Amino acid sequence: MGRWEPDALGRLQQAALALYGEQGFDNTTVAEIAERAGLTKRTFFRYFTDKREVLFWGSQELEEGLASGVGAAPESAAPLDAVGAALEAASGFFEQRREWVVRRQRIITANPELHERELIKLASLTRAIAAALRDRGVDDPTATLTAKAGAAVFEVAFEQWTDETNQRPLQELIRGTLEEFRAVADAR
Amino acid sequence: MGRWEPDALGRLQQAALALYGEQGFDNTTVAEIAERAGLTKRTFFRYFTDKREVLFWGSQELEEGLASGVGAAPESAAPLDAVGAALEAASGFFEQRREWVVRRQRIITANPELHERELIKLASLTRAIAAALRDRGVDDPTATLTAKAGAAVFEVAFEQWTDETNQRPLQELIRGTLEEFRAVADAR
Repeated sequence: MGRWEPDALGRLQQAALALYGEQGFDNTTVAEIAERAGLTKRTFFRYFTDKREVLFWGSQELEEGLASGVGAAPESAAPLDAVGAALEAASGFFEQRREWVVRRQRIITANPELHERELIKLASLTRAIAAALRDRGVDDPTATLTAKAGAAVFEVAFEQWTDETNQRPLQELIRGTLEEFRAVADAR
Repeated sequence: MGRWEPDALGRLQQAALALYGEQGFDNTTVAEIAERAGLTKRTFFRYFTDKREVLFWGSQELEEGLASGVGAAPESAAPLDAVGAALEAASGFFEQRREWVVRRQRIITANPELHERELIKLASLTRAIAAALRDRGVDDPTATLTAKAGAAVFEVAFEQWTDETNQRPLQELIRGTLEEFRAVADAR
């Protein structure tokens, strides 16, 4: 049994992000992350399969949170409203760790491999939302189109929120972007 | 100078697709593709950087075609209508080679690495559409949201079109899916 390490997870995440920012993602090793966090490589691998996964930790939790948010919307809610409500409910997940998320985003944007990984996670998230809509009795193609609409709204709102000059809460940006999205679809 | 090989490109594409279908993408080598096509490896590398790119040949052409399609829409067209028109205009690109595209899609769906590559190409296509909208004077976030809406419509229509039982032309599926997409956004 390993020694109990107070907040090992948080220390590893902070150390990784600091090193990725200082010397680049590609140039950083797991050994360096563990050392910076004052922990062992073995402890690192208790939390993450590799150095990339440090940046995507929590995405499974987010996916499940969004799916259950879609399921929890009132029965009368239109599909896109159910998705909007789930996205708004998930905004706390990001607000709690805004500084970390903003720094993480800068690292991901700078690295094509990480950017690709982000696309794959977003596609997985979109499929989970579509599946949650189907569980509400929404048929395809509506379920898939609604999930993709939700993903588009989230991506755009998230990019605005992670802008360094941004002062608005993510929840408000999601709501505003959803309205802009409806306007895009309405314009003829 | 190499010998002139009649339709070397088409022969390599057909040979690659046949081998990927028969023995799997991972188990196929460039040497085998060239041999099946009755050509040399050297000829293969005149057309493709690697065996993966055989499946994504033409995506640059498609991207440019879509961007110029967006630019060619009447000045009065709403952003999403401009994108819809560009997608419909691009449908011929796929109709001309339907059998090849359908078989290609089956190979891509079965292979996670290829599926990731497809996501990356789609993200690039989406950025090209957004840039073409900005050139028409459409501001962000409308340009980005509209491009993502267009990509969602295209993906869903394309999936229906590549279904083996499908009899409807891609252009008609794009038009119908765009209407469904508008209904999704309208429902409250």
